[in-house]
Amino acid sequence: MAQRGTLGVAVVGTGKMGADHVRRIQEVTSGARVAAVVDVDAERAKAVAARADGCTAYTDPAAAMAAADVDAVLIASPGPAHEAALLTAFEHGLPVLCEKPLTPDAASALRVLEAERKVGRRLVQVGFMRRYDAEYLRLKSLLETGQLGRPLMLHNRHRNVASAPDWRSEMLINDSVVHEMDVTRWLLGQEITAVTVLCPRPSANAPDALRDPQFVVFETDGGAVVDVEIFVNCGFGYQVQAEVVCERGTARIGEGHAMVTNMAGRWGGTIAQDFTERFADAYDRELQTWVDATRADEVIGPSVWDGYAVAAVCEAGVRSLEEGGRAEVELVERPGLYA
Amino acid sequence: MAQRGTLGVAVVGTGKMGADHVRRIQEVTSGARVAAVVDVDAERAKAVAARADGCTAYTDPAAAMAAADVDAVLIASPGPAHEAALLTAFEHGLPVLCEKPLTPDAASALRVLEAERKVGRRLVQVGFMRRYDAEYLRLKSLLETGQLGRPLMLHNRHRNVASAPDWRSEMLINDSVVHEMDVTRWLLGQEITAVTVLCPRPSANAPDALRDPQFVVFETDGGAVVDVEIFVNCGFGYQVQAEVVCERGTARIGEGHAMVTNMAGRWGGTIAQDFTERFADAYDRELQTWVDATRADEVIGPSVWDGYAVAAVCEAGVRSLEEGGRAEVELVERPGLYA
Amino acid sequence: MAQRGTLGVAVVGTGKMGADHVRRIQEVTSGARVAAVVDVDAERAKAVAARADGCTAYTDPAAAMAAADVDAVLIASPGPAHEAALLTAFEHGLPVLCEKPLTPDAASALRVLEAERKVGRRLVQVGFMRRYDAEYLRLKSLLETGQLGRPLMLHNRHRNVASAPDWRSEMLINDSVVHEMDVTRWLLGQEITAVTVLCPRPSANAPDALRDPQFVVFETDGGAVVDVEIFVNCGFGYQVQAEVVCERGTARIGEGHAMVTNMAGRWGGTIAQDFTERFADAYDRELQTWVDATRADEVIGPSVWDGYAVAAVCEAGVRSLEEGGRAEVELVERPGLYA
Amino acid sequence: MAQRGTLGVAVVGTGKMGADHVRRIQEVTSGARVAAVVDVDAERAKAVAARADGCTAYTDPAAAMAAADVDAVLIASPGPAHEAALLTAFEHGLPVLCEKPLTPDAASALRVLEAERKVGRRLVQVGFMRRYDAEYLRLKSLLETGQLGRPLMLHNRHRNVASAPDWRSEMLINDSVVHEMDVTRWLLGQEITAVTVLCPRPSANAPDALRDPQFVVFETDGGAVVDVEIFVNCGFGYQVQAEVVCERGTARIGEGHAMVTNMAGRWGGTIAQDFTERFADAYDRELQTWVDATRADEVIGPSVWDGYAVAAVCEAGVRSLEEGGRAEVELVERPGLYA
Repeated sequence: MAQRGTLGVAVVGTGKMGADHVRRIQEVTSGARVAAVVDVDAERAKAVAARADGCTAYTDPAAAMAAADVDAVLIASPGPAHEAALLTAFEHGLPVLCEKPLTPDAASALRVLEAERKVGRRLVQVGFMRRYDAEYLRLKSLLETGQLGRPLMLHNRHRNVASAPDWRSEMLINDSVVHEMDVTRWLLGQEITAVTVLCPRPSANAPDALRDPQFVVFETDGGAVVDVEIFVNCGFGYQVQAEVVCERGTARIGEGHAMVTNMAGRWGGTIAQDFTERFADAYDRELQTWVDATRADEVIGPSVWDGYAVAAVCEAGVRSLEEGGRAEVELVERPGLYA
Repeated sequence: MAQRGTLGVAVVGTGKMGADHVRRIQEVTSGARVAAVVDVDAERAKAVAARADGCTAYTDPAAAMAAADVDAVLIASPGPAHEAALLTAFEHGLPVLCEKPLTPDAASALRVLEAERKVGRRLVQVGFMRRYDAEYLRLKSLLETGQLGRPLMLHNRHRNVASAPDWRSEMLINDSVVHEMDVTRWLLGQEITAVTVLCPRPSANAPDALRDPQFVVFETDGGAVVDVEIFVNCGFGYQVQAEVVCERGTARIGEGHAMVTNMAGRWGGTIAQDFTERFADAYDRELQTWVDATRADEVIGPSVWDGYAVAAVCEAGVRSLEEGGRAEVELVERPGLYA
Repeated sequence: MAQRGTLGVAVVGTGKMGADHVRRIQEVTSGARVAAVVDVDAERAKAVAARADGCTAYTDPAAAMAAADVDAVLIASPGPAHEAALLTAFEHGLPVLCEKPLTPDAASALRVLEAERKVGRRLVQVGFMRRYDAEYLRLKSLLETGQLGRPLMLHNRHRNVASAPDWRSEMLINDSVVHEMDVTRWLLGQEITAVTVLCPRPSANAPDALRDPQFVVFETDGGAVVDVEIFVNCGFGYQVQAEVVCERGTARIGEGHAMVTNMAGRWGGTIAQDFTERFADAYDRELQTWVDATRADEVIGPSVWDGYAVAAVCEAGVRSLEEGGRAEVELVERPGLYA
Repeated sequence: MAQRGTLGVAVVGTGKMGADHVRRIQEVTSGARVAAVVDVDAERAKAVAARADGCTAYTDPAAAMAAADVDAVLIASPGPAHEAALLTAFEHGLPVLCEKPLTPDAASALRVLEAERKVGRRLVQVGFMRRYDAEYLRLKSLLETGQLGRPLMLHNRHRNVASAPDWRSEMLINDSVVHEMDVTRWLLGQEITAVTVLCPRPSANAPDALRDPQFVVFETDGGAVVDVEIFVNCGFGYQVQAEVVCERGTARIGEGHAMVTNMAGRWGGTIAQDFTERFADAYDRELQTWVDATRADEVIGPSVWDGYAVAAVCEAGVRSLEEGGRAEVELVERPGLYA
């Protein structure tokens, strides 16, 4: 297979996520370099650009994408800016790794989907990085062997130490459970058809008016039932666990029990304190996979369809949260490009 | 505290459960003997009576309860026979250990409750034996320390190798989830106010027309959300697990990981194959606790109120199963006797 | 099988261990009662006797053993008093449960062995209670299936929170590792032929001059190598673990992981703080087994030969500790009574 | 810190290990390229060179090291060829990553050590890759916090599915336990002063005349006692575990329990089948660390002193294996270069 040389990447957005991707491309990823960084804050763009040899700072994404040494785009700007950046990349025919969410709602995701269809080939990989986590990959491999039979249920736990003070109840759905939505669809190969959100009386440790924790139930078009505990002020650590229950057995990941100590009357170990610790490898693998595929002129991984479908499930989740009861998910027909 | 001598027990019902209790009283329990056994099948009653010194066989519960050497009654007959046996025991003022269910429905349980109120003191301990399991007891002790804060959610797994061929879908609620109903009420000290049953597409290993597995969600009057996976044809073993999620931490029981082997490419251990293996100690402890309390003229443990409340929750569960959606639980006011 | 009525037991020694056995016979064990208690301290004997109906206090073991209502003897006095009490019991032909050690050294154990041989049948069960622990029993069962092949190595961990201030280095061998000596012989069915003790630089938490921890290696006549970490001031808990390594796999017990919590940045659970917590069930099962066997006129369980062989291994261990290097174990020929 | 551009690496030896390092540099490592490959088998060298852009094949290491585009050397040839290759690299002043063993015996390792001393600065990183394993690194970090107190003992398990048919007993020491020798020295920061090898009766699954398993005990100059179970025909998997026992607690790694399944009467998971699966990340991290350090003109990681000290411990181990008993380790004085 023919392979391109070192990939020149334009990183759009140099906030926490973007700056971390710049570091990753420089220090971890093989076969890519940061050719351009873009930020509306020109000073910040310059500061980040200075960390990489031969990297130019821009304030306009279109200018960066027009540069001769830019072969691909990594979008890490705030969600509302994604749509415009994606459309510009499409005009230049550039492959894109777009951080999640694809866009902030289903309607805008659908516009991006239409635009990519007009291009006629896939250009976008969406940053659902759990698909690159070693444990989730093992779980999927096991399911694919068929040893356990058909999946019937999937139990998920998703816990953060503490939320930012300005978090609102719907963000537990849109920013956190969004990962389990993608995991459910990817792991089971099924679409989510309905969402029900139940709210226990909130924890005393949650900020005022935040409904935390929440218990979310998905139904799928393959007849599976999926539950998610989302608890963003659990206090004790960052924990992501999944147990899939199949016809002949179950499999569970996310215990994180690498080192066991005996100390002061207790056995056990430490719990990760944030997602960068838990998913560091997944981010590395996600980016390397994208670079490798792009250099081979391929686009694989989560698609614009995935970004759109998850946005629609989020909207149903927020409806259930706000109105109570079960909310159905409506999807447009799946275009052939994403078959 | 004054203590009676060896307790003479009449065991009503000599099927699998009753015969096992006769063995337990003879070989395991301290301070009690089997004075009488009762069964409509006179031959079976005689055969079981022959295993214990000085034990008389009866076909009529009333006759056994009138015998001079009978101090207490253990009811292990089929559920529909419980009400009559309980009322007879009340007439004789005899303390009773009654296997679950107290009675088959909420209306009959309410009649028993009224009868015990007329007696004016508690006579009945209901056989919810999970309250005597060492792991559940540890979990409850931990909750009572307050270290974890208030309970917000409780996740339960309840799995059997295979169901009898004649099991019907509502039996998953009435015979299996009934245990989690009692556990929820006892562990959290809250009443269940609503039940929602979701049914995944049934496992290919379930008998025709049996909705197995089911995913059951309780809401409680203390604002907790409780979920139960019930899967009676899981194929791989008998497993009962519970994780309580509190404001400052979680606690999980039921892993059953006493012995770990490395063999043939796998690490791990065996899974119990039925409830007698998993809960042998709980049955021993339940019976010994009842004998000790009875000899001290006390009645403790699960009450007729518990039996009634669980029957009412079961009825709501079956409504949800049959009609879909969320079913509310209606309870009469709690009498002072059970405060 | 003919079975005697309730067994009248004389408990010799009413210190911590003896008093606990009195409680156990009264409250836990089925088929036995405390008919007599014996202690050189008459007041203490009377106080303990008062706790059991129809129990007489003695200061002389011989007087108790001559009483008409005494059917069997439980010796829980200090080790140096065991030989005399055993010989007296032999004179009365009474079955004995003798707390470990059988006697304080191999020479005295050999005298007891000769005396029992003269009686011509086994009367003594030695109190090596680990053989009655559910986890050790599971391990032995697994070995007996042959699934794992022949045992090659056995790794043991034996940890106490803290030793009494007056502990001496040889007590780690004689009072603690003595259990692993019996476990090794029982689990593998092999005799220990040599002992090597290695002493790391002592922990700062050990009392002055106490060599703690120690690392002890056994060689057996079946070609197995066994290691024991003994650490009596580990500070964090009481832990007894064993992993047997066989030709086709390994098996490990003693993790004690019944309940798992997530709290304050850590997952895990509590560690038992002493042996009564870890081995409560083993003591109960040991005593019940002895009562059941005695009522059936049988003597099973650890024998005087086991008590003698372990005493000889202890002596080799202390030689290795004091002189360095490897010490061989010399045993007399095994009498047919103990084949 | 000034940093060189992309590092041109000459890989000496294109067998299994060498070819894998070529792949790693090409696909995984950031900041390096394969500029040259060397093998006495010219065809094999050419075939491997063809996989990397701008890579030249050589049969003579000296020629490769003289090439203008070679900045550093990775030695992966058979052990007996290491000394000559190292000395050549020293002549060219090239930094080297040398696969373990540094050289086949202590005498030759000492010659390399003297040669590097004459160069006057460190050039060599020895390939003890366990120091780069995430779990060992976590264990070392924990020890360095001092929370657990001083290390007293270290228990190790090292198991392979099956050995090659031509393995000889001393290879268990020289090729396998060699890793625990390095781990002991690195983790505890102490030198090994004596080795004792005990041999259980060999497993029936070991090739004829192979003493497998072996149980190896180290004593250190810091007063620690270390034991290693080495079992190269355990049949069930590749397992490397370590538990360090300190004054206030213990810590254990190597369980490998990422995914837990329930299936067919058993809970548990799979065991890795070889070292490439268990230590894939460690190899990646080792190489990246070497590339990063080299580009920053630094030499860190295991030194020639480490290679020499381990060779001397191996020799003591083989003496104990062949002659029985305890063998002392003699080291030359540690040169200041390796302080």
